[in-house]
Amino acid sequence: MSQRIAVDAMGGDDAPRVVVEALSFLDPDLLSRVVLVGVEDRVKGAVGAELGCPIVHASEVVAMGEPASQAVRKKKHSSIAVGVELVKSGEAGAFVSAGNTGAVMAYALYGLGRLPGIHRPAIAALFPTVEHKPCLVADVGANVDCKPEQLLQFATMGSIYYREVIGVKSPRVGLLSIGSEDEKGNDLTQKTLPLLRESGLNVIGNVEGRDVVSGQVEVVVCDGFVGNIMLKFGESLAMMILGALAAQIERSEQNGQNGSLKESFARLLKRVDYSETGGAPLLGVNGVCIISHGGSTPKAIANAIRAADQALQHNVNRHIIAEIGAPVVG
Amino acid sequence: MSQRIAVDAMGGDDAPRVVVEALSFLDPDLLSRVVLVGVEDRVKGAVGAELGCPIVHASEVVAMGEPASQAVRKKKHSSIAVGVELVKSGEAGAFVSAGNTGAVMAYALYGLGRLPGIHRPAIAALFPTVEHKPCLVADVGANVDCKPEQLLQFATMGSIYYREVIGVKSPRVGLLSIGSEDEKGNDLTQKTLPLLRESGLNVIGNVEGRDVVSGQVEVVVCDGFVGNIMLKFGESLAMMILGALAAQIERSEQNGQNGSLKESFARLLKRVDYSETGGAPLLGVNGVCIISHGGSTPKAIANAIRAADQALQHNVNRHIIAEIGAPVVG
Repeated sequence: MSQRIAVDAMGGDDAPRVVVEALSFLDPDLLSRVVLVGVEDRVKGAVGAELGCPIVHASEVVAMGEPASQAVRKKKHSSIAVGVELVKSGEAGAFVSAGNTGAVMAYALYGLGRLPGIHRPAIAALFPTVEHKPCLVADVGANVDCKPEQLLQFATMGSIYYREVIGVKSPRVGLLSIGSEDEKGNDLTQKTLPLLRESGLNVIGNVEGRDVVSGQVEVVVCDGFVGNIMLKFGESLAMMILGALAAQIERSEQNGQNGSLKESFARLLKRVDYSETGGAPLLGVNGVCIISHGGSTPKAIANAIRAADQALQHNVNRHIIAEIGAPVVG
Repeated sequence: MSQRIAVDAMGGDDAPRVVVEALSFLDPDLLSRVVLVGVEDRVKGAVGAELGCPIVHASEVVAMGEPASQAVRKKKHSSIAVGVELVKSGEAGAFVSAGNTGAVMAYALYGLGRLPGIHRPAIAALFPTVEHKPCLVADVGANVDCKPEQLLQFATMGSIYYREVIGVKSPRVGLLSIGSEDEKGNDLTQKTLPLLRESGLNVIGNVEGRDVVSGQVEVVVCDGFVGNIMLKFGESLAMMILGALAAQIERSEQNGQNGSLKESFARLLKRVDYSETGGAPLLGVNGVCIISHGGSTPKAIANAIRAADQALQHNVNRHIIAEIGAPVVG
């Protein structure tokens, strides 16, 4: 197989600049195997384009928000189409794109087809964990509604990827659910778990959202709807926490008070510590009922009690009864 | 309605100690309205029990892992049963528990029943956002498989709770999905969105996982399977980031090198920055295809190219073809 890597120069929010800049981070050997695919004039015009990668011209660009089916039908000469074609023809062994995900999926599916025996391709994402070893989650967006047999294949493909690329001999596989017991889950997970158990993979059973970061499981399978939501939520949550902290460090240093950092951190911790938010109201039962986390701290329980008090003071249930037949006007 | 708040003294991983400790954080007025429910001897034995709250005796305790249906059937005198009964009889206006969530749900549902017109109760959780104003997500675990009409009710109940308790007049409501366009989503969201749009609620349409922390939407509805996974994942991710940072601050201070904090932070940022992980392999297409985030940095694109190279070097597809008919032995 060709060891060349076709890279979509037109993919991403700030292409081709960002893509061309990316090349300066590569080792010479890897760089020598990169082929840029894109609108030639624009790629050559980007700063750093003198790095000397060959450019394969593509006359069209798929926009980020463009419907994938339309792009595939109408833009036969897009950078994605050309990049995929390079892989299909064997001129390149791999294609990389930061462009419209749905379009890359669609072009790859129609251009390259599926591997023999595969029902549906899946997008795998590597999540950071406390163990400094990632957790591979598949699918994170290629398939919104899945069948049990598809999840089984995601598990197999994910295990192979983890074993071969990350180098763990027999990666542990978990089925994303809402409890570790076999009977916990939705219709899809209940039908999938027996298939996984019979698969010969190193299946540890159901895992929860928290296990994705725990380092106790290497491969987590879920449908692309759940996986995509978790991925985007996680990215934003991490950035929110670190962004707030970075701003605080900046401010502290400007004031020459690095000592106050610990306090700032404590404040931040409080803000993102879910247990501090107290309890979750159980909406819809005929009475105020607040459910707290089993691992609640005393402060969290106190907050749960305050939440109960608030629900009482604000007569939430009376409002629900009054308005459920006639929802609130926005 | 009674303004008393029944608190499950036996609920939570370290009950009753934690629950009793919680009381010391309450204002005198609120404290004066708390009724502890639990095994009298054990509650009295907990340090701080001299705070003087009345204790209503309950002879049984529901264990954290105990199946809810079994608990409801067999433990008629559990602290949860007694607490719910206090609300039912009107002696208390609210019940708070950090115990077995499924059991609290079940006792509340059978003991209190649903509010008139409500199909299914939902658990609402308040997520932190960048705007210092929480995002209410419902459901986070009460209902794994939902119908569109149920999500509509979660939206209505969530809006009412947000409006009344948090005080935002017309909270924006979003339907959790995998893209903001109306046509994005799974079967459930596609059927739910039209109902939401006709509801009279302040519906902004589909929202993504990232919007939960963006502060751009006050109420997010989803089925309890997705919501529960997101909740547990978010808790753990936040704790992972902050835990790592706290350890680093501790170490830096021991070494008298607070100056190195910025470096540590940069390292941490790198670890949790998803964009740094590069690209997501599209598993199952007949060729190597790496999909990167549209907002990728040059480093991220470089990493995506490295990921493509790794998939090539490790012949992932050849393994998938070879093993998909006969999955890996664990």
